[in-house]
Amino acid sequence: MKWIDAPWIELLRIALEVAATVAFALSGVMMAARKRFDAVGVCVVAFVSAFGGGTLRDLLLDQRPFFWVRHTEFVWGILLLSLAAMLFMRQRHFQPTERAMLLPDAIGLGLFAAVGVDIATAVGMPALIAVMMGVTTGVFGGVLRDVLCNEVPQAFSDHRPYALCAFAGGWADVALRQVEGTVVSPLLACVLITAGLRGLALWRNWELPAWRV
Amino acid sequence: MKWIDAPWIELLRIALEVAATVAFALSGVMMAARKRFDAVGVCVVAFVSAFGGGTLRDLLLDQRPFFWVRHTEFVWGILLLSLAAMLFMRQRHFQPTERAMLLPDAIGLGLFAAVGVDIATAVGMPALIAVMMGVTTGVFGGVLRDVLCNEVPQAFSDHRPYALCAFAGGWADVALRQVEGTVVSPLLACVLITAGLRGLALWRNWELPAWRV
Amino acid sequence: MKWIDAPWIELLRIALEVAATVAFALSGVMMAARKRFDAVGVCVVAFVSAFGGGTLRDLLLDQRPFFWVRHTEFVWGILLLSLAAMLFMRQRHFQPTERAMLLPDAIGLGLFAAVGVDIATAVGMPALIAVMMGVTTGVFGGVLRDVLCNEVPQAFSDHRPYALCAFAGGWADVALRQVEGTVVSPLLACVLITAGLRGLALWRNWELPAWRV
Repeated sequence: MKWIDAPWIELLRIALEVAATVAFALSGVMMAARKRFDAVGVCVVAFVSAFGGGTLRDLLLDQRPFFWVRHTEFVWGILLLSLAAMLFMRQRHFQPTERAMLLPDAIGLGLFAAVGVDIATAVGMPALIAVMMGVTTGVFGGVLRDVLCNEVPQAFSDHRPYALCAFAGGWADVALRQVEGTVVSPLLACVLITAGLRGLALWRNWELPAWRV
Repeated sequence: MKWIDAPWIELLRIALEVAATVAFALSGVMMAARKRFDAVGVCVVAFVSAFGGGTLRDLLLDQRPFFWVRHTEFVWGILLLSLAAMLFMRQRHFQPTERAMLLPDAIGLGLFAAVGVDIATAVGMPALIAVMMGVTTGVFGGVLRDVLCNEVPQAFSDHRPYALCAFAGGWADVALRQVEGTVVSPLLACVLITAGLRGLALWRNWELPAWRV
Repeated sequence: MKWIDAPWIELLRIALEVAATVAFALSGVMMAARKRFDAVGVCVVAFVSAFGGGTLRDLLLDQRPFFWVRHTEFVWGILLLSLAAMLFMRQRHFQPTERAMLLPDAIGLGLFAAVGVDIATAVGMPALIAVMMGVTTGVFGGVLRDVLCNEVPQAFSDHRPYALCAFAGGWADVALRQVEGTVVSPLLACVLITAGLRGLALWRNWELPAWRV
């Protein structure tokens, strides 16, 4: 499968990871701000939100070096972004609301799921595991963020479809890979379906079945 | 040691992991139900309870692919089990009690400890590390479950012997391996001693020394 | 770089890890005592506090076997230390205070940071990643301890410089390595700067910029 190493595919992958990384880092900054963490805590939570899902995926798949080791400019970027966001929020007395997190979060979820499915497929994982790695990449940055902040993980308890959107997008990605010769349309389908479903779920107020004991 | 690759030993190992996996997954479903997680949270917590200990062990021992990657039918099984348990519990207005968790939990603890000791020994770990890997396999699924549910880990704080039973069973396993040529009686001894001690501890209300400051 | 394998450097490294390990294990014992964990919980939290940071570093750098697998006498040591500390604290009705944790913690932070930078440099990591691995080695034992104890990680939220001291010490270490032919003065500089800054920060009541939204 020679397209895997084609330079522009590698470039597309990096572009996807940049956009998603910034989105998740900001969600981490906002959560840390709400918990009144100090500057170190804000930077660490931003880093874990941004790279936690991908790093867990690479640990599970035994892929090294990690994305952020190969591209240390990303780590510098997250540090600067966190400090800039802190300064900006303090000056504007900007109260980070949950609503402000929703859009970057939905796009980041789709982008990360696509990257995760892509990498897991490239190392020969079966379809279900590839989809799980996509979901893990998208969701576990936020889960680790919530665990570090001593919160119940939002992804498991707010009854709004989140991981499920990435699950659907991941299966679309895997299915399209069977019929397509190229990797571009599966990637795009995964991003669009995941982010679209997430947007639709928020807009229409879809709820996962509540647990009534 | 040619028995390690004998097909029926491999079969015994898989049978042990199936039984223990179901037991722990159910404990995860019940905990997630008590925390009122949504369907995604229930499935993830069931998965982490069932595979968390073994996955952490394999990460620490650098063993891959993981059990659930080699046998994806297990992941499907956990998904179906979680959904079935949710439906059943909702229909019967079944309140999952702590008591209902105790029996499958004790058996799962013994089974997982045996598997963990076995795998660590097979890759040449020293006795203490093999026992620790047995305890990790048995206990850390539950610890990760509690961390994800934002609870103080039960295994560390309820003052009832739990990890200690697996510790005793693990040492029996390791000791028997020194004198026996086969691997079956050590495995069985580990399961029986661990589960037996746990049952005895619950029945006689044994308590670990309380901490009085 | 032949000094990396010189026997006395290896000895210095082990001596550093012994001292730091004891310091962090005691911080774990004290935290577990405050949470009223049982004997198993105290031992596990002591173990995670002592080896968590280094184990996470080795997982991320894919270095195995772990320190505590190569030197199982350390695991025995932690077990005995935990039990001894419990007995001593119970007999003396010793209330573990936060103040009593500060000195061993500061020294342990410096020692672990030096070890982390050293190992990451030895496997060819870039400067920023080496510093991050130093910080991780020093700080994440405590973070994992707090996560297991269901507490907000102190390192992120108490507004007193902690990880930042290790960050400064780590950069001093990396910078000195560029100009020095030996590894001793960078290691010493890292320990002294980290522990010194931490001590100074506590003595002068330095505070990280508070987050005011």
